[in-house]
Amino acid sequence: MPSQLPTTTPRYSLLDDYSEGAHPSLLKALIASNTTQETGYGGDTYCDLARQRIRHHLGREDVGIFFVPSGTSANAISIAACLRPHEAVIAASSGHIVTRETGAVEASGHKIINVTPHNGKLTPQTIERALDDNWHFPHMAKPRLVYISNATEIGTIYSREELAAIKHICEKNGLILFLDGARIGTALASKYNDMTLQDVMELTDIFWIGGTKNGALLGEAVVVKDPQLASEFEFYVKQHGSLLAKGRVIGTQFAELFNDNLYFDLARQANLAAETLSSGIAEAGYSVYAATETNQVFAVLPLGLIKVLQEHFAFYVWEKWGDDEAVIRLLTTWATEPTELEKFVGLVLNWSG
Amino acid sequence: MPSQLPTTTPRYSLLDDYSEGAHPSLLKALIASNTTQETGYGGDTYCDLARQRIRHHLGREDVGIFFVPSGTSANAISIAACLRPHEAVIAASSGHIVTRETGAVEASGHKIINVTPHNGKLTPQTIERALDDNWHFPHMAKPRLVYISNATEIGTIYSREELAAIKHICEKNGLILFLDGARIGTALASKYNDMTLQDVMELTDIFWIGGTKNGALLGEAVVVKDPQLASEFEFYVKQHGSLLAKGRVIGTQFAELFNDNLYFDLARQANLAAETLSSGIAEAGYSVYAATETNQVFAVLPLGLIKVLQEHFAFYVWEKWGDDEAVIRLLTTWATEPTELEKFVGLVLNWSG
Amino acid sequence: MPSQLPTTTPRYSLLDDYSEGAHPSLLKALIASNTTQETGYGGDTYCDLARQRIRHHLGREDVGIFFVPSGTSANAISIAACLRPHEAVIAASSGHIVTRETGAVEASGHKIINVTPHNGKLTPQTIERALDDNWHFPHMAKPRLVYISNATEIGTIYSREELAAIKHICEKNGLILFLDGARIGTALASKYNDMTLQDVMELTDIFWIGGTKNGALLGEAVVVKDPQLASEFEFYVKQHGSLLAKGRVIGTQFAELFNDNLYFDLARQANLAAETLSSGIAEAGYSVYAATETNQVFAVLPLGLIKVLQEHFAFYVWEKWGDDEAVIRLLTTWATEPTELEKFVGLVLNWSG
Amino acid sequence: MPSQLPTTTPRYSLLDDYSEGAHPSLLKALIASNTTQETGYGGDTYCDLARQRIRHHLGREDVGIFFVPSGTSANAISIAACLRPHEAVIAASSGHIVTRETGAVEASGHKIINVTPHNGKLTPQTIERALDDNWHFPHMAKPRLVYISNATEIGTIYSREELAAIKHICEKNGLILFLDGARIGTALASKYNDMTLQDVMELTDIFWIGGTKNGALLGEAVVVKDPQLASEFEFYVKQHGSLLAKGRVIGTQFAELFNDNLYFDLARQANLAAETLSSGIAEAGYSVYAATETNQVFAVLPLGLIKVLQEHFAFYVWEKWGDDEAVIRLLTTWATEPTELEKFVGLVLNWSG
Repeated sequence: MPSQLPTTTPRYSLLDDYSEGAHPSLLKALIASNTTQETGYGGDTYCDLARQRIRHHLGREDVGIFFVPSGTSANAISIAACLRPHEAVIAASSGHIVTRETGAVEASGHKIINVTPHNGKLTPQTIERALDDNWHFPHMAKPRLVYISNATEIGTIYSREELAAIKHICEKNGLILFLDGARIGTALASKYNDMTLQDVMELTDIFWIGGTKNGALLGEAVVVKDPQLASEFEFYVKQHGSLLAKGRVIGTQFAELFNDNLYFDLARQANLAAETLSSGIAEAGYSVYAATETNQVFAVLPLGLIKVLQEHFAFYVWEKWGDDEAVIRLLTTWATEPTELEKFVGLVLNWSG
Repeated sequence: MPSQLPTTTPRYSLLDDYSEGAHPSLLKALIASNTTQETGYGGDTYCDLARQRIRHHLGREDVGIFFVPSGTSANAISIAACLRPHEAVIAASSGHIVTRETGAVEASGHKIINVTPHNGKLTPQTIERALDDNWHFPHMAKPRLVYISNATEIGTIYSREELAAIKHICEKNGLILFLDGARIGTALASKYNDMTLQDVMELTDIFWIGGTKNGALLGEAVVVKDPQLASEFEFYVKQHGSLLAKGRVIGTQFAELFNDNLYFDLARQANLAAETLSSGIAEAGYSVYAATETNQVFAVLPLGLIKVLQEHFAFYVWEKWGDDEAVIRLLTTWATEPTELEKFVGLVLNWSG
Repeated sequence: MPSQLPTTTPRYSLLDDYSEGAHPSLLKALIASNTTQETGYGGDTYCDLARQRIRHHLGREDVGIFFVPSGTSANAISIAACLRPHEAVIAASSGHIVTRETGAVEASGHKIINVTPHNGKLTPQTIERALDDNWHFPHMAKPRLVYISNATEIGTIYSREELAAIKHICEKNGLILFLDGARIGTALASKYNDMTLQDVMELTDIFWIGGTKNGALLGEAVVVKDPQLASEFEFYVKQHGSLLAKGRVIGTQFAELFNDNLYFDLARQANLAAETLSSGIAEAGYSVYAATETNQVFAVLPLGLIKVLQEHFAFYVWEKWGDDEAVIRLLTTWATEPTELEKFVGLVLNWSG
Repeated sequence: MPSQLPTTTPRYSLLDDYSEGAHPSLLKALIASNTTQETGYGGDTYCDLARQRIRHHLGREDVGIFFVPSGTSANAISIAACLRPHEAVIAASSGHIVTRETGAVEASGHKIINVTPHNGKLTPQTIERALDDNWHFPHMAKPRLVYISNATEIGTIYSREELAAIKHICEKNGLILFLDGARIGTALASKYNDMTLQDVMELTDIFWIGGTKNGALLGEAVVVKDPQLASEFEFYVKQHGSLLAKGRVIGTQFAELFNDNLYFDLARQANLAAETLSSGIAEAGYSVYAATETNQVFAVLPLGLIKVLQEHFAFYVWEKWGDDEAVIRLLTTWATEPTELEKFVGLVLNWSG
């Protein structure tokens, strides 16, 4: 049976940050690792090396680090591992666990209390409001864990001060703070960012570092600070079907991502690509819907221009904006080609409706 | 940070069939796929190609094929997708879902009714016995799905007649027949086998083809015959955290495994390696605990010989056997090195206790 | 050990509709039933009689009727019985399953999609909006069941036309319509009501008739129209710990409630009591927050008057209303004493702040 | 609609211990409680009184006591409250949670590890064997709770020494010991018993006192020693749909059962009735299958005699015993009529096959 695969999709995709394969360095590491015999289920030398490098980066040796294949598994496992059956999650109504994970958190038995986001984010005030609305015990599930993402679903980022304020309100109220880091690379590589990964670790209780959307073929690294939870975390990973027999497939990639700062270099490239798009759009006189802080651009464009762009590019039309315009979403990655960015900006600048 | 990885484990491992990386052809396919942009979540050209080739092999175009990262996810998702909350699974007490998956089936709410295996297998009689013991409704969970593995946990295989008899009893009693194919490659490549993959499809309701233990870095392919179930299966995959954004990582590997019969060639190699070990052990006058039908060898050896072998090889000592002997388990794969097999057999033949 | 029980609470309670015991007729029936031997688990003659009378009232012999001990069990069991794991519920954000059942629906694995209520109710428009926001499959849980209550959490009721419109939108979109009837008695006995219990049955797929809040010591009757679901419903009741061994304890009470229309007589009494309060409050010139359609009164009163009332009555202060007023909630039942109502109204009329 | 209830079942039932209604004293207490207004959800004066009397009986003020409607809810709630998702239960394969609760424990996500019982009971040796078979972490669920019943499913009882030995093995291995006391009344009232309820409390971590099978219409009282667990237990009761709004319906009954030792008086009556049957059977020269220690009699009788008995009595034929005999099970309660016992024994003694 001959293989006749198309080598490119017909239109260049700015749809998401997982359309490409792995960064070449990671693939190279995977190939290099292929010939040895290794202990299964994450006990291999590559997972060990990856854990060692991430811990070095975090400046702390005593945290548990667990590799899982997807963002949904990272979120569902972490939340299931942290909560008792009657405990609930507080999350933005736009949060990934609310809108894009097929009820995986509820499938493990937990209620999510929805909170209206501000610029994509939770605030101490909205968290307190959720607590005020959910105190009628034992008739209400007990709020116990706060879920946030950095970068958020609309590409905005938390400042150190904002995160510290949330951590403070959590500690005051006995809440666990969990951070979804699917796009933590682009968040921390943002020119507006004032935090390090070490800050993130200190200001949360449990968080994860996304590989899939930042150079890896698959894989996320969950960082668990609580020693008791860390000692039991693998049970949860296994029970959720996420403990890969050949752990090296994720281990080699994270070992490479955390070698010589590659992880943040790739994220910076993604952000620069987004900035190129965002600047071009602004230069042409169009406005943005949300500030371009990371690798997501939300632009308000005339419908006619959108039609022209769609001939060459694939992207989401997010929502209508008045009669003649719409918000579009553009996603960039380390692999986004500069010539395509130029082409996109050229079309925007040269369009005359 | 310099990388100083050991290039081999100190002793040659015959512990399991997931100690090695991927077969080189699969890795090559993965590299070749890396540069294109692809649709996410299994909608890519490689997953399509893999589905096309597997369907071609099955001789049937209308089955659903779904890729998941691990055996535990394949089992847990399939069972959760097939059952209503009050329905139970019938499985051998030695079954993988009973003994090695951290209660993943129960975690999705379902009781497993344990049945004593015969030579690792279920029979129509033991299934009927389980039905006879679980009829007191609504006080008992309703038996609804029969779980079997081929090859079994001890490496034995089902004949076509045995499987047909189980299918018959299932149809008669309204039971869904689900086959765990983690090692279906070595089962169907066994010299004792009289079935094709097409037979397996026809004689079951849902089954999966294991990649992880037969050449892939990760990944299993679940084959779903029921159209209604197939139309909803992706919800389950996603909800369990097993829908990989970059589906190509599994798609490319299965496309390659089902190109030119590679899947069964690799399995045959694994079986031959096991046969080499088994024959050598028999030649030396030692007995086997279970017939070597696939890539697992269970041999009864003197403790002194075991000690010698352990200096050079890693393997499980399965159980004590009288005062001076023990049963050991040896696992082989397509990657098991012939020179190591020779060395092992040589040690056995030349040992004088 | 001598028993020294207080014979009354210090203040007269208008807090809820479950502060009293059973209606004397029900208690009498319970006593009369006590001496016979009966088949366990709902197979007794009293459950049979109750089912017969309810079916007679509904004008339909072929519906399944199942008795459970509480409203939370009625809701959680019905929803778990209707849904597959990836299917979600659409409910008002004020719904009982959202706000007062400790995440029992999520505990059985299902997401609840929250919808903003209008006058306590869902509408075809808000249901369609929920569908429009939850279509991104398989990344979102699939909306499959609509949960409504009649009367609603704020005591308002659905008209026949409103319910028919919701039923229509459900049928059009493959949605199951489930009605929580904890207060269906007061809803159908409301002077604003234009439906019969038979209408409710015809315009929903599954619903329940509340006993606890309308004369019974405990117990709700779930009515299941789908024959397949009805044939399996007892498994769910049992699995949720709600199948009482001595089913007569609920059966006798429902047999009595549906003898000679007692059920609706009691509800009418509760509504009249609420009307007495509501009229008195209006007469005194104060406004209501929600129309008094059933046995709940929401009144906006001056803080000074509230303080006076609290000396004699227990009730919930629902929320602040400007600087000098607050909304209070008053609940009445068949057992609410007329002299207490007079006293309450007298205090309101005679107050001069 | 006239009521035409049969006043008796056609044959006298020795099928189970829940065929009758409540003991008259309990019903009287229920009637007496009916007129007052009470705080809902177990905060009423009757639940308080019941808790006070049970605590007095236990000689300990600081234990949590929670009322639930059924044995299945008592078991499922207690186990769900004690365990983390990856933790498993060890139970006899004959245990009620294994054989008669429709997978309620698994429905809350937990695996049950089956152990072969000895005379209906677990032993330190069988528990240790279960631990030895379930150590392969994280691939196996972690054994964490031991479930036992006293009396057992076959009516046998634990001696103080036996229970202490199990408690010892549990403490040594970090296992929670949970005792199902559906029939703890007849166990402690057995003439073979050497424990008090206080002993049971001291030698377990959590247990429950069965009301349904010993005089109550419904209701079981769960005793929780761990203060943290007790502080959260109501959440679980509510989430499982088992927190009754009118808590008095159980509270009044337990207050009465633990007034003047009624609970154990009723159990003793049940045991005496069983002894009457057992002695008569022995006198007639037939053997028993399990010793009659409580209110269950297992007798081996000729098929011809069984046929005669079935004309007048309802009971379970448990299993065949050779060609001409079968084991039957007879259950007695406080309400079993002496004249019926005489009649039964008479038939046995006078039978000539």
